[in-house]
Amino acid sequence: MQLGLVGLGRMGFNMRERVRAAGHEVVGYDRNPDLRDADSLADLVSKLSAPRAVWVMVPAGEPTRQTIAELGDLLDEGDIVIDGGNSRFSDDTQNSAALAEKKIAYLDCGVSGGVWGKDNGYGLMVGGDAKDVERVMPVFDALRPDGPREEGFAHAGPVGAGHYAKMIHNGIEYGLMQAYAEGFELLEAAKIIENVPAVVKAWQRGTVVRSWLLDLLVRALDSDPELDDLRGYVDDSGEGRWTVEEAINLAVPAPVIAAALFARFRSRQDDSPAMRAVASLRNQFGGHAVHSAGPSSGAGSTQG
Amino acid sequence: MQLGLVGLGRMGFNMRERVRAAGHEVVGYDRNPDLRDADSLADLVSKLSAPRAVWVMVPAGEPTRQTIAELGDLLDEGDIVIDGGNSRFSDDTQNSAALAEKKIAYLDCGVSGGVWGKDNGYGLMVGGDAKDVERVMPVFDALRPDGPREEGFAHAGPVGAGHYAKMIHNGIEYGLMQAYAEGFELLEAAKIIENVPAVVKAWQRGTVVRSWLLDLLVRALDSDPELDDLRGYVDDSGEGRWTVEEAINLAVPAPVIAAALFARFRSRQDDSPAMRAVASLRNQFGGHAVHSAGPSSGAGSTQG
Amino acid sequence: MQLGLVGLGRMGFNMRERVRAAGHEVVGYDRNPDLRDADSLADLVSKLSAPRAVWVMVPAGEPTRQTIAELGDLLDEGDIVIDGGNSRFSDDTQNSAALAEKKIAYLDCGVSGGVWGKDNGYGLMVGGDAKDVERVMPVFDALRPDGPREEGFAHAGPVGAGHYAKMIHNGIEYGLMQAYAEGFELLEAAKIIENVPAVVKAWQRGTVVRSWLLDLLVRALDSDPELDDLRGYVDDSGEGRWTVEEAINLAVPAPVIAAALFARFRSRQDDSPAMRAVASLRNQFGGHAVHSAGPSSGAGSTQG
Amino acid sequence: MQLGLVGLGRMGFNMRERVRAAGHEVVGYDRNPDLRDADSLADLVSKLSAPRAVWVMVPAGEPTRQTIAELGDLLDEGDIVIDGGNSRFSDDTQNSAALAEKKIAYLDCGVSGGVWGKDNGYGLMVGGDAKDVERVMPVFDALRPDGPREEGFAHAGPVGAGHYAKMIHNGIEYGLMQAYAEGFELLEAAKIIENVPAVVKAWQRGTVVRSWLLDLLVRALDSDPELDDLRGYVDDSGEGRWTVEEAINLAVPAPVIAAALFARFRSRQDDSPAMRAVASLRNQFGGHAVHSAGPSSGAGSTQG
Repeated sequence: MQLGLVGLGRMGFNMRERVRAAGHEVVGYDRNPDLRDADSLADLVSKLSAPRAVWVMVPAGEPTRQTIAELGDLLDEGDIVIDGGNSRFSDDTQNSAALAEKKIAYLDCGVSGGVWGKDNGYGLMVGGDAKDVERVMPVFDALRPDGPREEGFAHAGPVGAGHYAKMIHNGIEYGLMQAYAEGFELLEAAKIIENVPAVVKAWQRGTVVRSWLLDLLVRALDSDPELDDLRGYVDDSGEGRWTVEEAINLAVPAPVIAAALFARFRSRQDDSPAMRAVASLRNQFGGHAVHSAGPSSGAGSTQG
Repeated sequence: MQLGLVGLGRMGFNMRERVRAAGHEVVGYDRNPDLRDADSLADLVSKLSAPRAVWVMVPAGEPTRQTIAELGDLLDEGDIVIDGGNSRFSDDTQNSAALAEKKIAYLDCGVSGGVWGKDNGYGLMVGGDAKDVERVMPVFDALRPDGPREEGFAHAGPVGAGHYAKMIHNGIEYGLMQAYAEGFELLEAAKIIENVPAVVKAWQRGTVVRSWLLDLLVRALDSDPELDDLRGYVDDSGEGRWTVEEAINLAVPAPVIAAALFARFRSRQDDSPAMRAVASLRNQFGGHAVHSAGPSSGAGSTQG
Repeated sequence: MQLGLVGLGRMGFNMRERVRAAGHEVVGYDRNPDLRDADSLADLVSKLSAPRAVWVMVPAGEPTRQTIAELGDLLDEGDIVIDGGNSRFSDDTQNSAALAEKKIAYLDCGVSGGVWGKDNGYGLMVGGDAKDVERVMPVFDALRPDGPREEGFAHAGPVGAGHYAKMIHNGIEYGLMQAYAEGFELLEAAKIIENVPAVVKAWQRGTVVRSWLLDLLVRALDSDPELDDLRGYVDDSGEGRWTVEEAINLAVPAPVIAAALFARFRSRQDDSPAMRAVASLRNQFGGHAVHSAGPSSGAGSTQG
Repeated sequence: MQLGLVGLGRMGFNMRERVRAAGHEVVGYDRNPDLRDADSLADLVSKLSAPRAVWVMVPAGEPTRQTIAELGDLLDEGDIVIDGGNSRFSDDTQNSAALAEKKIAYLDCGVSGGVWGKDNGYGLMVGGDAKDVERVMPVFDALRPDGPREEGFAHAGPVGAGHYAKMIHNGIEYGLMQAYAEGFELLEAAKIIENVPAVVKAWQRGTVVRSWLLDLLVRALDSDPELDDLRGYVDDSGEGRWTVEEAINLAVPAPVIAAALFARFRSRQDDSPAMRAVASLRNQFGGHAVHSAGPSSGAGSTQG
C-alpha cells in the first residue's frame, strides 16, 4: 500500500526503510530537506492517492498536535491518520475528535523497539476502530517483528488504547531498568565479585532474569566494563510520569515504577534540597555535623 | 566424569537427567528411596572413585549445612563438595573452612532456571578456586545452556561469590516481577484496554520489555486470562531479603528491590497493623470514619 | 466583623462557634435546616451588609465550585469569597477569575486542625492579594490558634498558594502517619516489646519523635491497645494524590509521600492483582505453590 | 543516689548535669582529663559504694562492648551496669550474659533528646528486670522530662527491649524527617509559594503536622531560609539500618522507613552507579544521549 510518513528522525527514518523493504510505497516528509521525499505536508498529501494513510512520527506534545491539526486541514474524508509517536493517551481523544469532524479516521499506535526496530521489527500497540486497524494492517505487518502477528502486534482497544498500552509498557520498562541497575550497583559494591561483566554476561542464557534489556546491559559492559565513561544522569520522557499519574488516578499501588521514576529525578540533582532539610534537622537536634556548602566540614555526634 | 548428587527434588532430579544426558555418571541420593541410586550418604561416597565430586542440592540453611557436615566426615582429602542450593553466601565461608580442615575442596554454585532448566539448561554462577572450578567444568558444561559458555556460566570470584551472584540475580528477579505485576494491574484497572492478555502477548517480540519472564506471564495468561484462579499471596525464599540486607550493609540504595520485597510481605497479611494505626489516627484528628473489625461501618469526613 | 459561612458540617459548625466566640457576627447556611441561620444562599447574602465576606466550607470539587458559582451570581462588586475547603489549588485560579469578572475578590485558605480546631484553633494558609488578606484578618485571627500569629497563619502567596501549602501539609501528614504506623507494626511484631502502648506513650515527652500525631496515637491506644477494634482500611481524600502529582510535575523525588499513598491504595484491596501476577510467575518458572482462589492449597518449591 | 557515669561527651556531659541538678551524686569518667571526676574506670569504681550503679554512655559497638567488659572485671556481685548508648539490641543479650556470670545486673536504656535533653529531659526506654529498673528509678526520674513519668519513661520489656524500642523510635524519626524534607523540597520548587519559611512556621500551631521536629525545621530556616549554607549529605548512625533489618526479619512492610534510609545512602553518592546503568541502557536501545563522565554532552532521542 501507499503511506505518507511525517517525521524522519531516528525512528521515522528507520521505519521508512522497513516499510519500503516490505514492498510498500512511502512518501516521507521531514523539516530536514536532505531526508524528505515531499517538500511540505501539502506536497506529501498531493503525492498520495485517496484514500490516504499518513503516519505521524514526530515528538509528542505540541509538535504532534500541530502536525495532526495541519493534516486535518489538508486531508479529505476517508483518509486516515496514525499517530505513532509517544503521545499521552489523553491527546488521542482530542486528535480523533477534531479529525472526525472531517470524517478523517484516526489510529494511535505505540511503537517500541528503538534503534533496533529497523532490523528486529517494532512492537506495536494500536487503538482505534477495527475497520481502520484492518486497513492499515499491511503497514503494521511490515513494521512488526517476524513471527506470529499476535506476538508483536495488538489491537488494544478504542482510540487511545494504543498509547495507553505503550505508556504502561514504558512504565514497566522503567521498573525493569531500575531493577537491573540496582543489581549492577550491588555487584559493583560487593568486594567478593571479581568480575561484574562476566557475571552479568552469564545471566544471558538459562536464568530467570534473561531479557533483551539484559543483553543490552551486557553490550554496554562490553565496551565500558564499569560504566564509568558516562554519568548517572537520566532523563525521562513522559510515559513514566504518566504511568504513575494513572496509578494515582486508578488507585493502583505502583511502588516499583514510582521508585524508578524518582530515582531518575534524583539523578538530575546536583544536591538535594530534601536532604539539606534532613541534614539541618540532624544538626538541630543532635549537633550532628553538617557538610557545609563551602569548603570546610564538621565532626562529632550526639544521639537523637 | 563421575558425580555424586545429594537431593533429588524438583531441581536435583532434573539436573541428574541433564548431566547423565551429557554422558556423565551420576550417583544420586535422596531421602526418598524411589528416587535414589545410593541408600545413604555413606553408600553414595562408597560408590564413587576418589577423587570424588559431590554436588549438594538440598534446601538452604540447616539441611544444607548438615549434609555438608556429614559429607565432611565421609569424604577424603582431595575430594570436592559443590553446594548448588540457594544458601546464603555467608554460609559458604563456614562450610568451606570446615571442609578445608580435611583438605576437601569446596565450590558454591548459584543455579537459576527452575523447572525449565532440564531442557533449557541452568544459568550457573560459581565461587571458589580456579583449579577446583576447572575440575568440575565437565559437569558445569553439562548443566549450563547450549551456546557460548560465558553466556550461561561465570566464575564469579572466591568461595561465596557464586551464591552472592545468585542472591543479586534473585533480588533483580524480585524487581522485574514486581514491575511486570504493576503493569499488569494497571492494564487490568484501565477501562480503555479491552484485552489485557493480547497486549501482554504483543510485547513478546520487538519491544524493550521482552524477556523470559514476560513469556511466562503470557503463558500464565493463556490459561487464566485474568489470573483469578489464584490469590495474590506470595512467599519469599531468602535471597530477596538477603539482597536488601546487603544493600543496607553496602549503603547502596535499592528502592525497587526493597519495594518488591515489601509487596510480598504485604501480600501475606490479611489486615495491616500499620494501616490500622493510620486509620485510627485519621479517626482521632478528623473524625474520619473507620471500618470496624466487626460488621458495621461509619461515615462523614473532616479535614486534617 | 460580619461573616457569611456556607457549610456547617463538622468543620464549618465548629468554626462558626470559634468565630462567634471571638465576638464576630456569623450568618451560617447549610442544607440542613437544623443548623443554619439563613434559609438559602440568597437569604444569607441578604442578611449581610456590603461589602460582604463569605467563607465557603463545603466538600472540595463540584460542591465547592458550584457554591462559588452561585455566590458569584448573588454577590456584588467589592464583596469577597474565601474558599476554606480542601480544594485542589488549580481550582482557585478558575474560581478567582470567574468572580473577578464581577469584581468580587477571592482568597483560598487551607485549614488544618480537624475536630480539635474549635478549641485549639486552626492552622491557616492563605493565598490571594495582600489587601484582601488584610480585610479578612479579624476572622483569620479568630480561627487561628492563640500565640504569635505567624505560628498559626501564613499568607503563602497569590491565589492558589493557600491550598497549595495545605496540599503539601497533607502530603507530609501522609508520610508522618505512615512512619508512625510502620513503627507501631514493628513494635507489635517484636516479641521483646511487652507493652506497646507504654512505649508509644513514653515517646510523648523529651524524644525526637514527639508530636501531636503521636499524642493522638497514644489516645487511640488508650481505648484500643492493639488497635484491633478497626480494620486497616484507609481512605484518601485528594491532597495526598495531588502532592505526588505535583512531585511528578516538578520532578521532585517524593518516595516517602508516594509510599504512604500507595499503602492506602493497597489497604483497600481485598486481593492484589499485581501479587497474583507475581504468584503466577513464580508458579510458572519454579513450580512454586500458589494459593488458589478457592479453598485448597499447594506445596513444594524449586529455585529460580 | 550515687551513680558512676562513663563517657562525658555531648550526651554524657549534659546528663551528668541533669542528674546532679536533681540532687544525686555523680562520678564521671572520660578519656578527656578535663571532663572527668575519676582518672580511670578502676578509680571510678573505687569512688562508688557498693552496691554500685554505673551508666555507660559511650559510642555503640566496640567502645561500649569493651567498656562493659572492663566494668565486668572491676565490679562486684550486686552491682548494676546501665548501657545508655545507641547499642544494637542484640548486643544487650551478650553484655547481660557476661555480667550475669559475676551476678552483676544489667539494664539497657534507649535515650532520646539530643542536645536539648539537658533542659527538656530525655525520653527513656528501658529493658531488664523490674527489680533492677526500680533500683535505678531515681536516676531515670532525674533524666526524664518533667510531667507524668509514663510520658517520658517506659519499661519496655526484658534486657534488649530498651534499645529495641529506641531503634524503632529512630526508624520512625527517619521517616518523619524525610516526610518534612520532601514537603520542604516541594514548597521550594513550587513557584506559587512566595515565602517557604513563613509557611513552615505557620504549621507550628493548630495543624496536624505540628511536632518538635517541625519546630526544629523552623529554627533551621530562621537562620538559613533556603537551607543552602549546607549540603544535602546525610549520615546514618545504625538504628535506621537495624530497623529495616528487623522489618525484613519480621516480614513487616516498611516502605517509608526504608525509603528514608535509601535517601540518605543516595545523598552520600557523588554519582550513582545504578543510574549509570540506566543511562547506558537508554543509550543502548534508543540512542538516548548520555552525559559523559568527561566535559562533552550529547543530544537526540528515540522511543523505547
